[in-house]
Amino acid sequence: MRLAMIGLGRMGAGISRRLMQHGHEIVGYDRSAETVQKLAEDGATAASSLEDVVARLEAPRILWVMLPAGAPTEDTIAELAGHLSPGDIIIDGGNTFYKDDIRRAKELADKQIRYVDVGTSGGVWGLERGFCMMIGGDKDTVDLLDPIFDALAPGYGTVARTPSRDTLDPRAEKGYMHAGPAGAGHFVKMVHNGIEYGLMQAYAEGFDVLKGKSSDKLNEDQRFDISLPDVAEVWRRGSVISSWLLDLCAIGLAKDHMLEGYSGHVADSGEGKWTIEAAMEEAVPANVLTAALYARYRSRVDTTFGDKLLSAMRFGFGGHVETAQ
Amino acid sequence: MRLAMIGLGRMGAGISRRLMQHGHEIVGYDRSAETVQKLAEDGATAASSLEDVVARLEAPRILWVMLPAGAPTEDTIAELAGHLSPGDIIIDGGNTFYKDDIRRAKELADKQIRYVDVGTSGGVWGLERGFCMMIGGDKDTVDLLDPIFDALAPGYGTVARTPSRDTLDPRAEKGYMHAGPAGAGHFVKMVHNGIEYGLMQAYAEGFDVLKGKSSDKLNEDQRFDISLPDVAEVWRRGSVISSWLLDLCAIGLAKDHMLEGYSGHVADSGEGKWTIEAAMEEAVPANVLTAALYARYRSRVDTTFGDKLLSAMRFGFGGHVETAQ
Amino acid sequence: MRLAMIGLGRMGAGISRRLMQHGHEIVGYDRSAETVQKLAEDGATAASSLEDVVARLEAPRILWVMLPAGAPTEDTIAELAGHLSPGDIIIDGGNTFYKDDIRRAKELADKQIRYVDVGTSGGVWGLERGFCMMIGGDKDTVDLLDPIFDALAPGYGTVARTPSRDTLDPRAEKGYMHAGPAGAGHFVKMVHNGIEYGLMQAYAEGFDVLKGKSSDKLNEDQRFDISLPDVAEVWRRGSVISSWLLDLCAIGLAKDHMLEGYSGHVADSGEGKWTIEAAMEEAVPANVLTAALYARYRSRVDTTFGDKLLSAMRFGFGGHVETAQ
Amino acid sequence: MRLAMIGLGRMGAGISRRLMQHGHEIVGYDRSAETVQKLAEDGATAASSLEDVVARLEAPRILWVMLPAGAPTEDTIAELAGHLSPGDIIIDGGNTFYKDDIRRAKELADKQIRYVDVGTSGGVWGLERGFCMMIGGDKDTVDLLDPIFDALAPGYGTVARTPSRDTLDPRAEKGYMHAGPAGAGHFVKMVHNGIEYGLMQAYAEGFDVLKGKSSDKLNEDQRFDISLPDVAEVWRRGSVISSWLLDLCAIGLAKDHMLEGYSGHVADSGEGKWTIEAAMEEAVPANVLTAALYARYRSRVDTTFGDKLLSAMRFGFGGHVETAQ
Repeated sequence: MRLAMIGLGRMGAGISRRLMQHGHEIVGYDRSAETVQKLAEDGATAASSLEDVVARLEAPRILWVMLPAGAPTEDTIAELAGHLSPGDIIIDGGNTFYKDDIRRAKELADKQIRYVDVGTSGGVWGLERGFCMMIGGDKDTVDLLDPIFDALAPGYGTVARTPSRDTLDPRAEKGYMHAGPAGAGHFVKMVHNGIEYGLMQAYAEGFDVLKGKSSDKLNEDQRFDISLPDVAEVWRRGSVISSWLLDLCAIGLAKDHMLEGYSGHVADSGEGKWTIEAAMEEAVPANVLTAALYARYRSRVDTTFGDKLLSAMRFGFGGHVETAQ
Repeated sequence: MRLAMIGLGRMGAGISRRLMQHGHEIVGYDRSAETVQKLAEDGATAASSLEDVVARLEAPRILWVMLPAGAPTEDTIAELAGHLSPGDIIIDGGNTFYKDDIRRAKELADKQIRYVDVGTSGGVWGLERGFCMMIGGDKDTVDLLDPIFDALAPGYGTVARTPSRDTLDPRAEKGYMHAGPAGAGHFVKMVHNGIEYGLMQAYAEGFDVLKGKSSDKLNEDQRFDISLPDVAEVWRRGSVISSWLLDLCAIGLAKDHMLEGYSGHVADSGEGKWTIEAAMEEAVPANVLTAALYARYRSRVDTTFGDKLLSAMRFGFGGHVETAQ
Repeated sequence: MRLAMIGLGRMGAGISRRLMQHGHEIVGYDRSAETVQKLAEDGATAASSLEDVVARLEAPRILWVMLPAGAPTEDTIAELAGHLSPGDIIIDGGNTFYKDDIRRAKELADKQIRYVDVGTSGGVWGLERGFCMMIGGDKDTVDLLDPIFDALAPGYGTVARTPSRDTLDPRAEKGYMHAGPAGAGHFVKMVHNGIEYGLMQAYAEGFDVLKGKSSDKLNEDQRFDISLPDVAEVWRRGSVISSWLLDLCAIGLAKDHMLEGYSGHVADSGEGKWTIEAAMEEAVPANVLTAALYARYRSRVDTTFGDKLLSAMRFGFGGHVETAQ
Repeated sequence: MRLAMIGLGRMGAGISRRLMQHGHEIVGYDRSAETVQKLAEDGATAASSLEDVVARLEAPRILWVMLPAGAPTEDTIAELAGHLSPGDIIIDGGNTFYKDDIRRAKELADKQIRYVDVGTSGGVWGLERGFCMMIGGDKDTVDLLDPIFDALAPGYGTVARTPSRDTLDPRAEKGYMHAGPAGAGHFVKMVHNGIEYGLMQAYAEGFDVLKGKSSDKLNEDQRFDISLPDVAEVWRRGSVISSWLLDLCAIGLAKDHMLEGYSGHVADSGEGKWTIEAAMEEAVPANVLTAALYARYRSRVDTTFGDKLLSAMRFGFGGHVETAQ
């Protein structure tokens, strides 16, 4: 199929390349002409503006927007909408908040423009491993785009088959799913990221406990000096907690045993927060996912005002002095 | 009544003075002769050794040990036991782990020495306000000691009476209770401290949210610059969350609005941890009490190893760079 | 002063009565004519419609809206705005989300109508104890309304004075504060409720640990059967954790020792959730406040889907059977 | 090598069979003669008592004890020790608390009996996939036993190699590690299980949020009805959160979409609790691991006493009625 890729950063370029490798045609556009040129060298058709992009496609046009969520995506889609015709399809492959998808799909439906949201996981490894995709949109449109998703997805690969799936949608086994109407794709991707935070924090705390066991605050006969790179490595084989994130722990620890090259000031994208908001809307207790998010907040400050208030109260009732130096 | 006070630190001296003010006689002992001398000036009988303490009492002897929990208390009680006679009473008023009380009471029972554990709350304010006491031991012994506890307790005071207590133990309304056999007093005190951590952390987080509202990371029209001393003060009157800990917040914030004089590296005594251990033995979920304890641990380190592992994983899957400077 | 009270439920009626007791005049309105009649018997002027309310006041009119947050308040204020003149003042005393205040104040400012938000704590006890008030709005308007707030507030009362407040706003010591521009009052009240959840959960978990200590799953020599009404009572006097919420625990436990008359399915108003949203916007870790909210969610379901997924995983890796009956 | 396996339950039998498949000789013993007979049919030498076991081995004897932790393991090792000679080796392959290992190794060292603890992960799948092993003991003894561990371990398998491991212990890449002195093996295994709880709870909460999105408490345009078996399946391929536990989610959900066959009353072995105790000894905040453990406690009760106390407080301050039916 022929489609436009708008935004040729790491993800947009990776997706474009994988699609071209599978025989699809890409009209590429990016604010940076140099970036466009680079992709054109690999076989893409270069476009010089959004209008140019539209002109280089035939109805029904397919346009994949791969930009940072928020204003860049919002503005681009608004501008595109002015150039498109009924039946054309906009795909938002970024990290858009799913409620924005719901709103946007309604607005575009007024102009008979079709809207599909695609949450993708796989990061920088996707070009090689394939992209895991969670898709929202109406059934006909998602079906129409199937060759694109099929090409991008990892496919069956070497992953063991799950029993009892005969009557279930075969697309999931290839690494992509139609999650529901517009917004459902990004919603599933959002929860994916919420879980990711929880998993990461579980490993982080576990390794913290392992490392703490060598502390000289413990009695000598209760102290172990455990090789953390070996622990991560050994758990990769046959253990209940093997995972791709653990693979990454093993890689990181093998290269830098004490992780001295990392600051430990951990950023968070919006998705962890949105997952908690969704949990609260549904009245679902999500202690682990929330604690994982808060650990990141806490990692970015030295001392909270709350900590100081604890010191002040302790001084008040017990004369405990925890003064600043 | 006549009793010995062993350990004349802030708490031991305060208890002694309040007892003497209520007509009881104190035989005082401390490692520091100077400290003993000071109390003697206020009317106590000075003792120069544990043996001397025992010699200055008549059977059944009453000895209140007010020392740091652990070795100091353990060793002192072991030594005392060698000098005492059947029917004598040892009171441990420190912060002993309740399982040590259970063990110790059994050991002393073999020598017919009676053991009573008293958990006290009230900190440095106790001399003035009276001490809130939770007592473990056998009924007859606790009853025998009642004049002592009655003198130390705050009494009815100005606190509003609780309805429906006519058939309940009147001692609780005076500020002391017989909680059960040996260990029960310190157990109730331990849970008291566990709750204390939770309450303190709730205020700490709330004020953190209030303070964060002035952050220039928020849009200007969503920003408030709220007087935190005024908030603490206003909540003291008529609000659902008024408490003595809030009074202390108000005092601390009025004196030092931004709490710049406090380090925010918050210590914890063992009781918070023991409360969590008890919760786990009982399979009781205690998310709030535990989170409060962990916030203190976290306040004492700049960056955890776990935080760095998060950075390492993020670098692994997304090329996110969170390197140390 | 003369002002209208719109909404004469428990809170609106209580506020009206306290104001009239302090010499203010109330024009009362409620959907229920019977309710209006009742207040009129105590001296209020009865109004039969919002238009009638407006007609019975003189410019600058003062109208206190005391209705459930959301549509009832929103619609009433919108309708009122149509009848008012520049300079008139609308007070929202309900539990409105502070971002709605910010928006609403802007909208009304276009018509030169002044908007003040008042968060009140004190519940059903306010009529007697006075209402603790957190106020948002512009300085001049809040100052103009001072006689109203002064009458409603608890006043200095018997609460001990906080040192070092000489240079601070004296209103806080009387139980009300001007927190900032429109929205700031409800924001402070919202955080108040977030803290309230945390405090309540701390007591709840502590008493759960105390009760669990009598479980026959523990070895007999580790078991205590502690009088929970007495614990709550004793902690009210001289302990670090005395508070008004603890007073309520004591009242509840004295009347119903095992709390058999309560379902334990605990509702939450929106404020706990909003506090967490604010914490996330500010990137403030709020583990305790969040855990307290989640405990309420969890109290309202028997078994979560997540619990079942744990069972399914355990069956998968270990053959552990946790099947439903 | 020739060694004894004491305890031929699922794990003991699986380990024995894998060892025999790799050319080792097993002397098998179990309380149940029938169970011994079954293994003998597969080539093991049957023993009829612990004494008989010892008689059928030559010095230095190797005895692998594979029994439930606690009394069964403790008593068996104590009895064995009476029959063994200096230089003999006891391996504890169960789920023993690592502090018991430390103590036990010291006691046995007095008799010059060597002690090795092996934590194994892999559950019922180990026979096929190999067992992931974490080993504690002195270097010479662990080296001596290497052929046994090498046979049991999964080996390199198809798992991608971790870069930068050239100078690190190659055993970890085959699926076993020497973690440190006695106790270190079970310590690492314990933390493994602590992490396992955290990972499982992260998935559980995520799927709970996905499922809650179909709740009819949400506005219709905010509701999605997402196929959970498809979500689990799609995340297995190329996503950041792929893992073996996710594979198990996919298997469970494919077979029983709503998990109606599971009770959701989730048991916990001691290791989750021990991990939290270790974290507290080290003052390491472990919010996620603890919340995961508490979720299991909570899953096993309908209503906590704490929940009821919340209801009682709410009734106290607001007249909110949450009475039991």
